Amino acid sequence: KELHSVEEAFEFKLTDCVSWINVNGLNHVDSIEKIGTHYNLHPLVIEDLVSISQRPKIDEYEDYLFVVLKMLHLDAEEKLNYEQVSFILGSNYVLSFQESEGDVFGSVRERIRQGKGRVRTMQSDYLLYILMDAIVDEYFSVIETLGDKIEDLETDIFEGSIEESATKDIQELKKEVLKVRRSIFPLREVINRIEKHESALIQQRTKTYYRDIYDHLIQVTENIDIYREMLWSLMDMYMTTISNKMNEVMKVLTIMASIFIPLTFIAGIYGMNFDYIPELHYKYSYFILWGVMIALFIAMLFYFKRKKWL
Amino acid sequence: KELHSVEEAFEFKLTDCVSWINVNGLNHVDSIEKIGTHYNLHPLVIEDLVSISQRPKIDEYEDYLFVVLKMLHLDAEEKLNYEQVSFILGSNYVLSFQESEGDVFGSVRERIRQGKGRVRTMQSDYLLYILMDAIVDEYFSVIETLGDKIEDLETDIFEGSIEESATKDIQELKKEVLKVRRSIFPLREVINRIEKHESALIQQRTKTYYRDIYDHLIQVTENIDIYREMLWSLMDMYMTTISNKMNEVMKVLTIMASIFIPLTFIAGIYGMNFDYIPELHYKYSYFILWGVMIALFIAMLFYFKRKKWL
Amino acid sequence: KELHSVEEAFEFKLTDCVSWINVNGLNHVDSIEKIGTHYNLHPLVIEDLVSISQRPKIDEYEDYLFVVLKMLHLDAEEKLNYEQVSFILGSNYVLSFQESEGDVFGSVRERIRQGKGRVRTMQSDYLLYILMDAIVDEYFSVIETLGDKIEDLETDIFEGSIEESATKDIQELKKEVLKVRRSIFPLREVINRIEKHESALIQQRTKTYYRDIYDHLIQVTENIDIYREMLWSLMDMYMTTISNKMNEVMKVLTIMASIFIPLTFIAGIYGMNFDYIPELHYKYSYFILWGVMIALFIAMLFYFKRKKWL
Amino acid sequence: KELHSVEEAFEFKLTDCVSWINVNGLNHVDSIEKIGTHYNLHPLVIEDLVSISQRPKIDEYEDYLFVVLKMLHLDAEEKLNYEQVSFILGSNYVLSFQESEGDVFGSVRERIRQGKGRVRTMQSDYLLYILMDAIVDEYFSVIETLGDKIEDLETDIFEGSIEESATKDIQELKKEVLKVRRSIFPLREVINRIEKHESALIQQRTKTYYRDIYDHLIQVTENIDIYREMLWSLMDMYMTTISNKMNEVMKVLTIMASIFIPLTFIAGIYGMNFDYIPELHYKYSYFILWGVMIALFIAMLFYFKRKKWL
Amino acid sequence: KELHSVEEAFEFKLTDCVSWINVNGLNHVDSIEKIGTHYNLHPLVIEDLVSISQRPKIDEYEDYLFVVLKMLHLDAEEKLNYEQVSFILGSNYVLSFQESEGDVFGSVRERIRQGKGRVRTMQSDYLLYILMDAIVDEYFSVIETLGDKIEDLETDIFEGSIEESATKDIQELKKEVLKVRRSIFPLREVINRIEKHESALIQQRTKTYYRDIYDHLIQVTENIDIYREMLWSLMDMYMTTISNKMNEVMKVLTIMASIFIPLTFIAGIYGMNFDYIPELHYKYSYFILWGVMIALFIAMLFYFKRKKWL
Repeated sequence: KELHSVEEAFEFKLTDCVSWINVNGLNHVDSIEKIGTHYNLHPLVIEDLVSISQRPKIDEYEDYLFVVLKMLHLDAEEKLNYEQVSFILGSNYVLSFQESEGDVFGSVRERIRQGKGRVRTMQSDYLLYILMDAIVDEYFSVIETLGDKIEDLETDIFEGSIEESATKDIQELKKEVLKVRRSIFPLREVINRIEKHESALIQQRTKTYYRDIYDHLIQVTENIDIYREMLWSLMDMYMTTISNKMNEVMKVLTIMASIFIPLTFIAGIYGMNFDYIPELHYKYSYFILWGVMIALFIAMLFYFKRKKWL
Repeated sequence: KELHSVEEAFEFKLTDCVSWINVNGLNHVDSIEKIGTHYNLHPLVIEDLVSISQRPKIDEYEDYLFVVLKMLHLDAEEKLNYEQVSFILGSNYVLSFQESEGDVFGSVRERIRQGKGRVRTMQSDYLLYILMDAIVDEYFSVIETLGDKIEDLETDIFEGSIEESATKDIQELKKEVLKVRRSIFPLREVINRIEKHESALIQQRTKTYYRDIYDHLIQVTENIDIYREMLWSLMDMYMTTISNKMNEVMKVLTIMASIFIPLTFIAGIYGMNFDYIPELHYKYSYFILWGVMIALFIAMLFYFKRKKWL
Repeated sequence: KELHSVEEAFEFKLTDCVSWINVNGLNHVDSIEKIGTHYNLHPLVIEDLVSISQRPKIDEYEDYLFVVLKMLHLDAEEKLNYEQVSFILGSNYVLSFQESEGDVFGSVRERIRQGKGRVRTMQSDYLLYILMDAIVDEYFSVIETLGDKIEDLETDIFEGSIEESATKDIQELKKEVLKVRRSIFPLREVINRIEKHESALIQQRTKTYYRDIYDHLIQVTENIDIYREMLWSLMDMYMTTISNKMNEVMKVLTIMASIFIPLTFIAGIYGMNFDYIPELHYKYSYFILWGVMIALFIAMLFYFKRKKWL
Repeated sequence: KELHSVEEAFEFKLTDCVSWINVNGLNHVDSIEKIGTHYNLHPLVIEDLVSISQRPKIDEYEDYLFVVLKMLHLDAEEKLNYEQVSFILGSNYVLSFQESEGDVFGSVRERIRQGKGRVRTMQSDYLLYILMDAIVDEYFSVIETLGDKIEDLETDIFEGSIEESATKDIQELKKEVLKVRRSIFPLREVINRIEKHESALIQQRTKTYYRDIYDHLIQVTENIDIYREMLWSLMDMYMTTISNKMNEVMKVLTIMASIFIPLTFIAGIYGMNFDYIPELHYKYSYFILWGVMIALFIAMLFYFKRKKWL
Repeated sequence: KELHSVEEAFEFKLTDCVSWINVNGLNHVDSIEKIGTHYNLHPLVIEDLVSISQRPKIDEYEDYLFVVLKMLHLDAEEKLNYEQVSFILGSNYVLSFQESEGDVFGSVRERIRQGKGRVRTMQSDYLLYILMDAIVDEYFSVIETLGDKIEDLETDIFEGSIEESATKDIQELKKEVLKVRRSIFPLREVINRIEKHESALIQQRTKTYYRDIYDHLIQVTENIDIYREMLWSLMDMYMTTISNKMNEVMKVLTIMASIFIPLTFIAGIYGMNFDYIPELHYKYSYFILWGVMIALFIAMLFYFKRKKWL
């Protein structure tokens, strides 16, 4: 259920069962500070909660864990959104703070409401696991979309349908991949520290689940690194394609010029006005000249054919 | 022998000897879950068993090891197939799960049937070793085929028989090498963890054999890295070859133009209609002009020869 | 308050409260040596204090810590200044030494004067934290300015408004980024060592604050590394743009030459002075020739259009 | 002395002194298996002994060490040969297995025969040291030859005597360097493990000698890495040289075309057959035209000179 | 004072004070062996002393340390000299061995003679420190000279004054930087091991001084790495400059050809000898044609201006 004031949420703290309080929108600084005071959070944690340019990290405090990570999701226009999500994991509560409304926790809410699965019988650390797992699962579809864009670009370049925007597209994708990488990469260390964390907050049997997230993250980051490498070599491909095109243009120019320049020279010779040019007065010399020119023409075509320029 | 229902296989669990149960095809989720329940597997393991995009990994549980790796083999058209193989190593059984029918375990089955070698007298950890060894041995022939393709491409480029598809071929091979690398590389860590594993599941004397697989893997991954480096420099080679070709085209154009442009200019001079051009009226000036032109022609050929453009 | 002689400052040493002595300008070697003797500093420390080409480092002595770092700030013309700041952290004092007058400690001084926040109630290690925090916060605005410059350059190159100075600008930015990186990177290790330092100088509860600086530094250096990578690929972009331009120039040349060279040849043919050229005497041959030439012209335009050169 | 049957060699095992048994040629599998059984070697060791595609490695067994490395030597035609040498180090024997006859142990044999130096008074670990030292010493002359080839190629490219084979030569050298690197690099780890080995097989005082081999190996591998880097930048050099050449060709073409095209145009003007071209009828206009053309010619030469194209 | 026989030096060994024996020239192998025997040095040490291709290293023996490093200094022609210096540090003596006469120890000798500073009151480890410090200080001026050369080259390339020797200069500098790096880099590890050395040879209070050398070395190697990176991107700059030049040449050619080729075609048209070309007989057609040509000329100039080719 949705609550209307922050204070309503506080009564959950005392109950035995695990509570999940989700805060949408980080500009209600007042409410966030109230929650912070209630749950006895360190001032630096509250500061970090409302500053949205954090990188994924974990801070271990005595009776709670503070985890920051990036939620990536594609909006309707396939544009990538980066949203910061912070979690406070206490012994019987999970607080989550998001920048804005939309999130990827729909299926989690559904499972909790229906009371299905292991969700309702397990502790707060398992709740944090399924929330993080939902975020990491979303990563897969995000990088898949990136991969599709890269392969489209690759096909375009291969097929020679090069537009000048290609360099721009490659550069944009490079920056996107770098940004995604930076949002996801440090999370590996975060999960690793959760797995190694030694306190009652994280139970031994839940660690297997965090290990599973870790494996997923390795898979995601490996794919990102492969996309990066592909993008770098795509630039090379593009350069090669330009060189190939230029080469083709050069060949046409060379063939045209090489064939007609000598022919034009010959025509020039017999356009000269010398009083005494014996060839000019023979009856068939015009036709003979045509013969010579056509022979030359064919010889040159033949030569370029052999050079594989045609 | 081949079994017809999953339950038939379960009676093996109680016997003293080592049993190897191989499951082909991962879409019989029901059967796999039955096996999972019978052998008391963790829910995450069963989930991983049927999800085929795992990277090679090992998960250590109390009374069994869960190993995932990739089986690479070339089909009839020399296309590379990636198949996921999962092993569960228990104290007296090895379960193996493959995506589809074909595999590289033919020789292993043969050895077991004939009762030859150390297979029948040793424990389940040795059985797992010979199964993994068969897979790793196949890696060698796979990367050898990749290497052959790269060297063919190299020879093509050296011999100047460049087709525009070369860039595409290089890019395809790069992606293939990256994919193979990603399938094999993490296995090193897996074998390493088996070697360091401290429980009765892996006996001390078997570890020497796993060390041997590890050495093979190092050899395979080193070869892959060399192929990668070769492919990167192949792109450079290709670029250089294009530049060389363009250079050659440029030279022909330059020679043709440089020789005939001045000659045509001279012919143009004496095609002018000025009333008073003294040269036009000397009897031998036409022949003298031819002499001058031929001299110029030869001088230029000589000049280009000295510049090594011819 | 500002002091007029070094000796005035010494009486602070004995007081209970935390004192912060800030020395501007490192050429008063005498005064610095007096302070050094008074606070019992190692000769190497005093040597390092006045030598301004230090890299960020920490030296741990028995009863004080010696920290050197770089203060980066932008002057009025957006030029980047590098200033060396050294700190001596004692049990109840912080000494700071700067190269020149201006600094980024304005807000810190304000907070101390107003007695606001935790500054006045905490120990010298917390004072050092807020001083270093002020410096690290400044790093963010510095690299943001760098980032803006890089993106401006990128936009310029994309829009094709290439001037030859672009290479120079890229090179300058590369060197700037390298220099900033070198000034900031080693500070991570310094903060790390402060966090791990085991003595009464750094209290346990202050370490959380140093951890916060450390997180900020990671963010800064990650951004720098991304800018570096962007600059490298910007050079590639620029090369591609040059190639594209050259390609365009080549096409114009090729089209002009390819169209007019054969036409000029035809005109040359009928400029020849042979006695017997039958075409010359037909009444409409001049107009027919024009028709042929225009047809050729259009055919060639069509051909280049199909080749997408127009 | 040379022995004629394998069994003859076995009696040495029981003697007090250190014996060195060297086996040339690995196709006498029978004899090697006999030796293996006699010296109680692990089946995997015997398998590795006869398989020649091993990478350098060390396997530590209870009462012997198994070391594999590559012996590199140049044959008469300066071609590089890779031969696998395996050593078994026991408490009072060293077994060595080579692929073929020739080796680099000539000087070692000489020293043993003459009973000179420390060879005869020391244990089997020292014998292994001098054998490995002989192999590593040979590495130096091998990489020196590689370095000479690279510098020759560099000089060729600098002097502009570029043949198209240069790319091929560079590629060949790259592959050779990669192969040498792969043969030598893992040996560092092998020596390192020998140095750290804790058993009576390797005495404390001998370890200083192995440390010496290790230092040599570091030197060798550093040189190899420098050669690698040189080869990579050599490719760049070559590309630049090609670009420079193309640039030079372009200039000649541009100068020729730019000078004569306008001149030819002028000649064309006065070759027109208009009834009324006043210039044609002035007496000196032909000579004036020549003056104008020569002036134009000189002006253009001057212009190109100033542009530094000549 | 200078000694005339090796034996004279030996009496110092027994004295209480610290002695520094410096040996210039490594070809007096006899004397060096005598010293070695007297000071009880390991045979490998003596071997290393006279072999001048060592890389910087430290060997720890029971009662002495053996340190090898490279002394870099610029000779009169700014050429870089590499000289190997070896030190033996005993409890009350320092032996130093140089390849030749000149060294950088002038100031050290001066300080010892004048008995100034801490030199005379401290142990042999402090003496070794000031000797190594003198060598490391010299590194700074060496890399500064390298840096100046690189910046000169950079300015040359930026200003377009490209000579073909630029590639050669860059390559030479690259090799020099690689060589300097190799000479200095391993010294960091050496100093690190001295700092961590656990014996009476290195006193606790001296370690602070070695730490200082270590900091200097980090600074030096960081600068070297920056120079390396600058050199690599300098090559890119050079390539871009060549491309820019070629582009400029192409433009001139394109403009000349594109303007005059159509004009020449028009002139050719009216040079034809058809009996019936109506334009030829109008009185002003010659002047009209000139008008058309000039209009075409201006239109094309305008077009190229708009394309920014002029």
